[in-house]
Amino acid sequence: MNTNAVFSELNIHLRRAHLLDSIGQLLGWDEQVNLPPDSAAQRAAQHAALAETTHAALSDPRMGELITALETQRETLTLDQQVVVRWARRDYDRATKLPAEFVREKAQQGSRGYHAWAEAKKKADFASYAPVLEKNLELAKREAAYLGHAAFPYDYMIDRHDPGMSAAVIEKLFDELKSGLVPFVREMVGSPIKARTDLMRGFPVERQRDFLREVTEKIGFNYQRGRIDVSLHPFCSGTGADIRMTTRFDADNPLDSLFSSIHETGHGLYEQGLASDQHHTALGQAAGMGVHESQSRLWENQAARSRGFWRFFEPKFRAAFSEQLESVSSDELYLAINAVEPTLIRVDADEVTYNLHIVLRFELEKKLFAGTLAVRDLPKAWNDASQALLGLTPSNDCEGVLQDVHWSDGAFGYFPSYCVGNMMAAQLWYRALTLRPKLEEEFARGDFTWLLSWLRETIHAQGKRLDTLGLVRHATGEELSPKWLLRYLKERYGPLYLR
Amino acid sequence: MNTNAVFSELNIHLRRAHLLDSIGQLLGWDEQVNLPPDSAAQRAAQHAALAETTHAALSDPRMGELITALETQRETLTLDQQVVVRWARRDYDRATKLPAEFVREKAQQGSRGYHAWAEAKKKADFASYAPVLEKNLELAKREAAYLGHAAFPYDYMIDRHDPGMSAAVIEKLFDELKSGLVPFVREMVGSPIKARTDLMRGFPVERQRDFLREVTEKIGFNYQRGRIDVSLHPFCSGTGADIRMTTRFDADNPLDSLFSSIHETGHGLYEQGLASDQHHTALGQAAGMGVHESQSRLWENQAARSRGFWRFFEPKFRAAFSEQLESVSSDELYLAINAVEPTLIRVDADEVTYNLHIVLRFELEKKLFAGTLAVRDLPKAWNDASQALLGLTPSNDCEGVLQDVHWSDGAFGYFPSYCVGNMMAAQLWYRALTLRPKLEEEFARGDFTWLLSWLRETIHAQGKRLDTLGLVRHATGEELSPKWLLRYLKERYGPLYLR
Repeated sequence: MNTNAVFSELNIHLRRAHLLDSIGQLLGWDEQVNLPPDSAAQRAAQHAALAETTHAALSDPRMGELITALETQRETLTLDQQVVVRWARRDYDRATKLPAEFVREKAQQGSRGYHAWAEAKKKADFASYAPVLEKNLELAKREAAYLGHAAFPYDYMIDRHDPGMSAAVIEKLFDELKSGLVPFVREMVGSPIKARTDLMRGFPVERQRDFLREVTEKIGFNYQRGRIDVSLHPFCSGTGADIRMTTRFDADNPLDSLFSSIHETGHGLYEQGLASDQHHTALGQAAGMGVHESQSRLWENQAARSRGFWRFFEPKFRAAFSEQLESVSSDELYLAINAVEPTLIRVDADEVTYNLHIVLRFELEKKLFAGTLAVRDLPKAWNDASQALLGLTPSNDCEGVLQDVHWSDGAFGYFPSYCVGNMMAAQLWYRALTLRPKLEEEFARGDFTWLLSWLRETIHAQGKRLDTLGLVRHATGEELSPKWLLRYLKERYGPLYLR
Repeated sequence: MNTNAVFSELNIHLRRAHLLDSIGQLLGWDEQVNLPPDSAAQRAAQHAALAETTHAALSDPRMGELITALETQRETLTLDQQVVVRWARRDYDRATKLPAEFVREKAQQGSRGYHAWAEAKKKADFASYAPVLEKNLELAKREAAYLGHAAFPYDYMIDRHDPGMSAAVIEKLFDELKSGLVPFVREMVGSPIKARTDLMRGFPVERQRDFLREVTEKIGFNYQRGRIDVSLHPFCSGTGADIRMTTRFDADNPLDSLFSSIHETGHGLYEQGLASDQHHTALGQAAGMGVHESQSRLWENQAARSRGFWRFFEPKFRAAFSEQLESVSSDELYLAINAVEPTLIRVDADEVTYNLHIVLRFELEKKLFAGTLAVRDLPKAWNDASQALLGLTPSNDCEGVLQDVHWSDGAFGYFPSYCVGNMMAAQLWYRALTLRPKLEEEFARGDFTWLLSWLRETIHAQGKRLDTLGLVRHATGEELSPKWLLRYLKERYGPLYLR
């Protein structure tokens, strides 16, 4: 068979695996959005049956043969074909190199771990949770070893979420970020200026829904190929052909719903911008979690909390909620949109302090994997780091080491992507402002097309051709650096709080 | 391997096939309820990928071996195990006896046929559609032959939808029904009394939604294991663990929405009443379309159009829509609920004349399969039958032979089940009244539990152990007969229209 015939056959296999995976995503979305309360057992069984089928498609020996055949003819492949084959290899190895017994053990441990965490959190009892964490660490190291990364298991965990990224790269970035951010947060905390988010009360949900629909559509989400619904925690799933976003509503916290919708819209815009005929290959798939987060954060923060954005949307917001906003001044509204208040809890954190929560987790994960921190010493290490970074010490482990679900099912190396995304978003923002100095004036006129077009071209259209660092280089001409995020936070928040 | 081990392994295969099928149902539901407009191509591809997987599960050679092994040890099986094996054999044969080439040809023809029908209907041009019908007839006969029913292909088509039923049995039932119904319809048409459905205007959709939720919950639908949403055409899908019903709303036609919801609730109650641990075997699956329709019709018609039912719900209905119903008397309301008006169009037909639409289609299908009617002569045969049965002649083929989509993709033998369901519903109703003479008084107090419990026990709990005729015998102690439907229609509609 000639190369193109082999490549075509590989595409058929990839397409099938992708379609089955996309069905799994729909099952997951439906579970969060529509599932009747007593139907969870059947949904779990459906997930399991489909996962088995998807795994069989991903690990089909014929797929392995095709990939190997193409690898041996590498010089005859186009560059794009090489990208497809490289990623097909990676996915195939991940589907085939883990022994079935290990996969089962990990799945069981994940479920056990979740319940142990929930129990421990209820009782603020870290001791009962420690063995779970130890087991999860061990499984993560074994998984890394199966995939050929025994020497650097934490790098493997990071790369799983953010391909091409490593602990050493992140450490350097985070150290620089930390040294600029910690003193800035100290200054902010000392400010007498406080945002009055409590002024926002009684916003009817129906009108919130209409308003966020208008906003997300205006910035470019294509509702002909996606929708937004309600779930307990906002998320975005699906592929570019059918993006399902969710949000949640609180009559007394309309900004939460609005900004989390814009965040998910950022994810959705990325997916909708991927090559629509290549969703089954690396050419039409997102580069990784860090890049994904850069897109959601760029829209949520740099764009949607900007003055220009609100020059356009404030009149519309006031028209929709005239009574509720009657006694809220423009300055009060803008300050509430950019509220900063350090908290012990990551998911409640504002844009400024959020990054320190991530730095904290990264540093602890790194030490856990290096063996320089024992699981039993984690609570104290967490509390010390919390005081050093945030100036706050948890009063119990629920406010500290037990707050996140991630580690309970072994999702190590996941947190850093959030902060990588924030750094990348800020760097993209300044690059955009350099290329388009009047961008915010365009926002003020309700024109958001340039930013999206530029992201489509420089980021979305690339698929996985470039990794996080490569995409930053490609889009901005410079290496990824935290200086842009620091600059952005100081330029946005300094004038509001340190005036 | 001993019988129980073989039987257990068969169950594993059946369960897997059932789960994959249930995922397909969810894809179908989501397509009708949620799919963004431009995501149809991806959904079609998802359906195809899943169908391939489901078919592979249904036709797994191991499944065949297990069934054969159990068939050879039939005497060691319990009666229930025999039921499971008998139906597993039937499903396995249907999955394996059709050559892949034929399945492809039929799928292509189905899609082509639909478009040809839509085109022909637009232009009222039967001639362009005739070759499609001829091809569909030929395919149906070939399919019957592959399954070993070359001699009686129409019986095969009927049995596919309503197991155990045959053209000869239906012909006898329909002839008796017809001879009683045609003169009764003539009488009704001559009545000067007309229902005033036009009085019902401006019913807010939100309140319609609340009201039908109350009604459907009250008669027993378990919303912990199901939901109701909106789609273009109402339907009910899913399995007992997660039933998805739909309805549609029209502010000027609240009874349409209400009764179609009750109809779908009847289907849903049946599914929810099937043995919940046996949805993957014949022990926990519906007996067929005729029985399914008996459940939906019994609730929609005999129960929900009864005086007792409205003694309970009329005050609630008036409370919800006090303005809209201000000038509508109780008699006018009850007459609107039981409106009769012959029409040429089946889907618009009332409960009395609907059955004649079915008789018409059955008689034509029978002749088409027997070869005593040529496709080209179908329009005239349709119009003649319409005049004879309904007293109405179509002014063009859109109002006649082109009105239904069913034949366009080869769904012959499907129509009779509707009328079988109507006959069975009426027969069940009179049996229920014999066992529980004060049933309507219980309805009037808002107590619908007895009827559902009785159906659960006599019909739902049986799964596929008995077929349509067997279930009627089991539940009523008599053979299926149209006399109950005739009696019911006369007793319900006579006093309203022929007084």
